[in-house]
Amino acid sequence: MSGEQELGITESKEHNPGDWYAEVVQKAKLADYAPMGGFIVTRPRGYALWEAIKDNLDGWFKETGAQNAYFPMFIPEGYLEREKDIVEGFDPEVAWVTHGGYDELEERLAVRPTSESIIAPFMAKWVRSYRDLPLRLNQWNSVVRWEATETKPFFRTKEFLWQEGHTAHASESGAWEEMTLRLDQYQRLYEDVLAIPVLRGRKPEHDKFPGADTTTTVEALMPDGKTVQGGTSHYLGQSFADAFDISFVDEDEDERIAHTTSWGLSWRSIGALIMTHSDDQGLVLPPTVAQEQVVIVPIWQEDTKETVLQYASEIAAELQDAGIRVKLDDRDERNPGFKFNEWELKGVPVRLEIGPNEVDDEEVTVVHRPDGETITDDRGDIVESLRDHLDEVYAKLYAAAEENLEENIREASSRNEILGTIGQHGGYVKAPWCGDEACETEVKEQIHAEVVMVPFDEDEEPIGETCAVCGDEAETTAYFAKSY
Amino acid sequence: MSGEQELGITESKEHNPGDWYAEVVQKAKLADYAPMGGFIVTRPRGYALWEAIKDNLDGWFKETGAQNAYFPMFIPEGYLEREKDIVEGFDPEVAWVTHGGYDELEERLAVRPTSESIIAPFMAKWVRSYRDLPLRLNQWNSVVRWEATETKPFFRTKEFLWQEGHTAHASESGAWEEMTLRLDQYQRLYEDVLAIPVLRGRKPEHDKFPGADTTTTVEALMPDGKTVQGGTSHYLGQSFADAFDISFVDEDEDERIAHTTSWGLSWRSIGALIMTHSDDQGLVLPPTVAQEQVVIVPIWQEDTKETVLQYASEIAAELQDAGIRVKLDDRDERNPGFKFNEWELKGVPVRLEIGPNEVDDEEVTVVHRPDGETITDDRGDIVESLRDHLDEVYAKLYAAAEENLEENIREASSRNEILGTIGQHGGYVKAPWCGDEACETEVKEQIHAEVVMVPFDEDEEPIGETCAVCGDEAETTAYFAKSY
Ligand SMILES: [Zn+2]
Ligand SMILES: [Zn+2]
Repeated sequence: MSGEQELGITESKEHNPGDWYAEVVQKAKLADYAPMGGFIVTRPRGYALWEAIKDNLDGWFKETGAQNAYFPMFIPEGYLEREKDIVEGFDPEVAWVTHGGYDELEERLAVRPTSESIIAPFMAKWVRSYRDLPLRLNQWNSVVRWEATETKPFFRTKEFLWQEGHTAHASESGAWEEMTLRLDQYQRLYEDVLAIPVLRGRKPEHDKFPGADTTTTVEALMPDGKTVQGGTSHYLGQSFADAFDISFVDEDEDERIAHTTSWGLSWRSIGALIMTHSDDQGLVLPPTVAQEQVVIVPIWQEDTKETVLQYASEIAAELQDAGIRVKLDDRDERNPGFKFNEWELKGVPVRLEIGPNEVDDEEVTVVHRPDGETITDDRGDIVESLRDHLDEVYAKLYAAAEENLEENIREASSRNEILGTIGQHGGYVKAPWCGDEACETEVKEQIHAEVVMVPFDEDEEPIGETCAVCGDEAETTAYFAKSY
Repeated sequence: MSGEQELGITESKEHNPGDWYAEVVQKAKLADYAPMGGFIVTRPRGYALWEAIKDNLDGWFKETGAQNAYFPMFIPEGYLEREKDIVEGFDPEVAWVTHGGYDELEERLAVRPTSESIIAPFMAKWVRSYRDLPLRLNQWNSVVRWEATETKPFFRTKEFLWQEGHTAHASESGAWEEMTLRLDQYQRLYEDVLAIPVLRGRKPEHDKFPGADTTTTVEALMPDGKTVQGGTSHYLGQSFADAFDISFVDEDEDERIAHTTSWGLSWRSIGALIMTHSDDQGLVLPPTVAQEQVVIVPIWQEDTKETVLQYASEIAAELQDAGIRVKLDDRDERNPGFKFNEWELKGVPVRLEIGPNEVDDEEVTVVHRPDGETITDDRGDIVESLRDHLDEVYAKLYAAAEENLEENIREASSRNEILGTIGQHGGYVKAPWCGDEACETEVKEQIHAEVVMVPFDEDEEPIGETCAVCGDEAETTAYFAKSY
């Protein structure tokens, strides 16, 4: 019994979300802590989630003209320096390679914190004519940012997996459309694959990607009231193209400077997925990304074992043939209760319980992971009904997340109201804002909430006439929230 | 015209294979040289080849129980040290991270040269009982080895893409089967996907992977007479498991040490692919990995343009619907001759030429890339006939490589015969060998050829009774060859 105890989650999501999250990640075997602080080991069940995310996005990227490439993981210091004309740079966060074998390198190499500074010079080399545009490159890799914060698997790690897209276009409108397209795809990933509704918006001026004209974001609200920046897409204007000389000859033989974008989504999306749906029994996954969509747990006595297992195997085979990812847990050495707990912990969306009664009645007992709803279905329509159950589980997860989001967007018209509302409820607080960083800082210092986004449409009227903090004229609506 | 000239390959594969190879890689837009010596930038056409290789292998790995994971790209120096009980280690080849941001690290971090030393401790942690075995992990990543040699894209680069599999088993036979299974899959990749026949064998004692019991290899013979080590699979015995304490409780409650394997295949396979099939017109690809399997070049005058393009588009649509990767090159600004050259350079396996005659006769003209064979086919059976043409092109490529291999395995029974045969013909020279490294060194010093493998079957009789070099009793047959 103590073994079963250890297997289960002991922390409470509601009362101790940080420890609960760490426990779910480890006990569901998604990841482990590496020996160096800030690094994790992604175990097969965690990596399978990343593969599911990657397969979806990569397909959409390719359908829409992006091509995968691979640039070196190291960037010479001089290349990073070159970027400093336009951006502050990543210096404080860079891991430096100084030695190769026994020799000190003549020039230090940065382990890429992002690849603009190594990709842009090659774009400059490869782009000659308007016929070479748009040029859309993407790479799936890992990057390193030496941030000295507490490790939180998938949310905060010094090395993380992501994709980074880099594109060049002949016109501003082409680049702007690209930025929007990629943000749409990130939204689609969250809403149609991860069962998480998101808000889209822009980052305020002082929080844009260094050197960007516009940074857009999808934001996902976690159950603990904090927001996650789920993916960002930047219109970089002509600043990078100018600095790195990405120019082209247009139809009229005139030399012009390109417009560029970049866009990235990291394994933080896995963090948001775990945090959003899981509960005190462990991981909860939508069927879209679950390694096993259905687990069959046979329940037998010695005299019924053969018929029960026979019936369960036939169902497993039928589901598998229909393309449903099914696992028949026929282990002898574990009892059904243990198996229920284990597969709940691992987040399998639907459980089938099959005992002698189900065999006799030609039925199956179906249990939904998120809420434990139990249904008896006919054996005959098993494939169809399972497909419906998987859809229902997805819908339940989405609806719960949507309800959390809708209930947690509030308005405020004064500094105290912002502080009070976030303090009491978390979530997003919309307030009219002058756009001044100082007004954000005032809130940040009090309650660690910041302006996580402003409306996507720059022309949208603010929800009030004067800044909730300073009383000056409002320029936009700010979404204040605490952030992961 | 000078533009066309620049586009084409100027070096000769036969007379200047090194420069020819570099030119094909760059002009077919597979890769470019990075600013740091030893590093390359993999362009979309090059990366697509890696994706094709990866998709095939990854599918086979998953069907046979391997699970993908991701371990950190850095390994603490102390972890690498721990390995030194069993192996000499990678010290001279390691890139070291010494600083994070502005701070010097307390312990240096190696950029992984391979991941045994970071994976093994986690295997030790995760494996408790025989029920946890076999444990089969794989990761697709890049590794860094600071070798000070001339850069040769895909063949010799300081950073390279690869997969590394690491498995633990309860028994020697389980681990041995695993090693063999992965070698089989590598052979299958070369023979069924890359159209390159290979030889399988073991590495001699002194050339095994450090710490391994047995290192097996697939070797591919290049047209210039040098061999490429195409992938290796190691049975590590219990040495790693012993050093890292990968132990388990067996069915009888006894504590036992696991047996481990590792196996890897890198983007050197892309190098072998390019080198084997390509020619003085540029890249040649088998249809299995070609981004475009068929290119349609329409040939028109002003008055026939519309009908020709209409006919060509219909064919393109029909092929695409049938799942054939087809590209219709309907660019206005280029003439057919330019297009022929460009798609030949890029290695498209089959070209369709469509002019007014083809339209009138309801035919297509089909050209095979490898040998220029030209066939007239009926329009009606286009999908079926194209499928046959793609198979034929694959068969031609394989047959040519096979002929090269078969013609270039020779025997020798004396030191001078080994030197003379390799000097004159290249290829493999089989000779009886005592197994002593000194005898290999004698050959190596004279002619840079080494023992690249010995027969897979340890019990196979050597082809002669005495070592061709020293005259002592022969233990095995050695395959001498120059190697990439
Ligand atoms: Zn203000
Ligand atoms: Zn000898």
